[in-house]
Amino acid sequence: MVSCSPQWRRPHAAKPDATLGLATMNSTALLTDHYELTMLAAALRDGTGDRPCVFEVFARRLPDGRRYGVVAGVNRLLDAIADFRFGEEEIDQLRRNAVVDDSTLAWLANYRFSGEIDGYPEGELYFPGSPVLTVRASFAEGVVLETLALSILNHDSAIASAAARMVTAANGRRMIEMGSRRTHEEAAVACARAAYLAGFTATSNLEAGRRHGIPTAGTCAHAFTLLHDSEEEAFRSQIEALGVGTTLLVDTYDITEGIKTAVAVAGPDLGAIRIDSGDLGVMARQARDLLDSLGARNTRIVVSSDLDEYAIAALRAEPVDAYGVGTSVVTGSGAPTAGMVYKLVEVDGRHVEKRSTSKQSRGGWKKALRRHKDTGTALEEIVFQASSEPELGQYDRLVQIPLMRAGRLTDEVPTLEQSRERLRAALVSVPWEGLKLSRGEPAIPTTYLES
Amino acid sequence: MVSCSPQWRRPHAAKPDATLGLATMNSTALLTDHYELTMLAAALRDGTGDRPCVFEVFARRLPDGRRYGVVAGVNRLLDAIADFRFGEEEIDQLRRNAVVDDSTLAWLANYRFSGEIDGYPEGELYFPGSPVLTVRASFAEGVVLETLALSILNHDSAIASAAARMVTAANGRRMIEMGSRRTHEEAAVACARAAYLAGFTATSNLEAGRRHGIPTAGTCAHAFTLLHDSEEEAFRSQIEALGVGTTLLVDTYDITEGIKTAVAVAGPDLGAIRIDSGDLGVMARQARDLLDSLGARNTRIVVSSDLDEYAIAALRAEPVDAYGVGTSVVTGSGAPTAGMVYKLVEVDGRHVEKRSTSKQSRGGWKKALRRHKDTGTALEEIVFQASSEPELGQYDRLVQIPLMRAGRLTDEVPTLEQSRERLRAALVSVPWEGLKLSRGEPAIPTTYLES
Repeated sequence: MVSCSPQWRRPHAAKPDATLGLATMNSTALLTDHYELTMLAAALRDGTGDRPCVFEVFARRLPDGRRYGVVAGVNRLLDAIADFRFGEEEIDQLRRNAVVDDSTLAWLANYRFSGEIDGYPEGELYFPGSPVLTVRASFAEGVVLETLALSILNHDSAIASAAARMVTAANGRRMIEMGSRRTHEEAAVACARAAYLAGFTATSNLEAGRRHGIPTAGTCAHAFTLLHDSEEEAFRSQIEALGVGTTLLVDTYDITEGIKTAVAVAGPDLGAIRIDSGDLGVMARQARDLLDSLGARNTRIVVSSDLDEYAIAALRAEPVDAYGVGTSVVTGSGAPTAGMVYKLVEVDGRHVEKRSTSKQSRGGWKKALRRHKDTGTALEEIVFQASSEPELGQYDRLVQIPLMRAGRLTDEVPTLEQSRERLRAALVSVPWEGLKLSRGEPAIPTTYLES
Repeated sequence: MVSCSPQWRRPHAAKPDATLGLATMNSTALLTDHYELTMLAAALRDGTGDRPCVFEVFARRLPDGRRYGVVAGVNRLLDAIADFRFGEEEIDQLRRNAVVDDSTLAWLANYRFSGEIDGYPEGELYFPGSPVLTVRASFAEGVVLETLALSILNHDSAIASAAARMVTAANGRRMIEMGSRRTHEEAAVACARAAYLAGFTATSNLEAGRRHGIPTAGTCAHAFTLLHDSEEEAFRSQIEALGVGTTLLVDTYDITEGIKTAVAVAGPDLGAIRIDSGDLGVMARQARDLLDSLGARNTRIVVSSDLDEYAIAALRAEPVDAYGVGTSVVTGSGAPTAGMVYKLVEVDGRHVEKRSTSKQSRGGWKKALRRHKDTGTALEEIVFQASSEPELGQYDRLVQIPLMRAGRLTDEVPTLEQSRERLRAALVSVPWEGLKLSRGEPAIPTTYLES
């Protein structure tokens, strides 16, 4: 009997601490690249680890001809930073594998982030060069957060950015995220959150319901119909268990027969039908006509099956009431990562920047303001040195908010619902061309002010 | 002060159980689509939940013109099934949200998978229609595992499939997986595992080191050089902390100067240099010449920066000793999910299959054998009904192995190292054209035997 249990079980969970008799924390500390800790060891040794630094998270470009990005994951990151603690198990693991020396281990055992973080709140738009997150701390305290910060922000922002395009394409119709089966089981929970942030109505993922309070939805799959001796028996069973307000999946055998059976069993008050295959536009129109002819005028039509923002937009003229979206949203619809980087931009007040070849970056602690027309339409993203903040015009606003002070959350961190509302408002401010689905330039340009 | 702590913390971890005084398990039960439980509720109510069923995981096609897929995630799934238990917290969550009725909740509270699972072991190749996993259980016991099984298998197999192509392209050179920052923080751990399974040498991810025993690697980033007053001081510090066997990153400012400084500081016994920007082929050749001229003939050259299988293959003729691969491997190099489905294929001995439109599937409990030439080269994947197993020829082998019996792991489940070796051997058996990186047909055809 081979045990493979170490391969899945989260080792930092539910283990009693040997010395304290307490459960150890849910540590995020090892969700980190090896080199963050070797850099730390060298910097602690030579004394540069104490130098006050500024690290900046930004994207050099938007993926794939996108017009805007949506910031997501910030609150998950703030939580993960609170849990970024090296307990006995983490220290033992690093010691056994000789990742760093003992004095570095001692430093890590006392680690607790005590610096300042400012950033774009979740639901804010970002553009190339936007200073999405700014971490001010000693080199030692700041460098170790790089991997975790990028993992969370790159993943969640990629999903939210794709989801926002789908929500725009759906033009107010209900959207259900149902992609859990097409991504890592924990990423699925974060995807449900990012999609909801972007305006999706609900998710299929029950853990996202628990962890983030997102509405969950679902009724039956084809398996349920196949399980029964006939489609009619399956529908009857479903109605008995879930009520006539449920959604019946009508395309297991023949859609026309499926719809007739559905209405025969449920009556004209049937909540909805779902179509999960075929040419969805044609199917939806035929289904609507048939439902209407059967008196089921209020029965809604839900469509799913490989929908992305383009397929959703193509169904705009069709009698579709809700979309179920899976693969495309959880894979970022062609852009599964946001490509943000975490760069050291200032050391002890000195601007620093890599100078070789194509990966040049701009040094210095920077902030951003967004300039708007008097109508509220965004005009440009202006990035400036924090040391020389320009006067704000009437239609300008600073984009970053304070997120952490002395290692503690500020009271400005918005809730998920507030972030959802922020994005809704932000999308209204995007110039018309910026909402197009086609590839192109960013919706607004980024301008760097020289100080 | 807004607390956002429920948004990240894994809620099933480290919570004492109120009634038993024990820590609750690390439950995977809610990593599940809502509809699995509503189907369950209806099936328990009408009695069909007890029907003996066979569910099959397979891929209708390989993504993106790929020639083969690599099975991965099976052992993680087996672990996750062991943890698929509904504790008090999970039941409370479902009750509060009225997901299912009380009698279904009572059934879930006692849930423990007791069925049989056969499948392709990790590291095995799969093709369109390969029965990658076969779950035999009552409908009720089997249906609830759909989401979790697909999340894990689709994610891990996508990453392993991409990683295997990169390993082939690298032709024996060392490969370091360093993509954690480009994917969800937990997916990153699974990616490191899948890449290692596929033949990568090491990972940057420390948690993968702890959880899966994978070698971890890393030295310094550009930030470390920028932190110091000069490149020379940075290199000197790194050598002091990590020894002359370390890898110095030489492209922060000017690569030629960087290499000269590196050898001046470390001496000719410097372990390696890393180049992370520019035209890597040209850079590697120049670097090799320069290192040799400086007497550092054994100093290795590591390259990174947006490498995928094509870029790796293009560097084959260059003096590169190791590749660092990030984004492309953790995003599946264009195919971030494997597209496997979990289908009900048999109910109470009756074959079932969806019949409408394009998503047709083949009913019945099926197995597969792989036929080979006498040279060991694979010829075809033969899928047959389990009830009529053909006689095995001399060069045929059954591909599935027993994984669970009566809900317990069999002793045939291989270790990660064994799976790594299995894949290495399997790739040798692929017909020559099947290892090409270009798009095309599957390396071997799938043949369905009619019973």
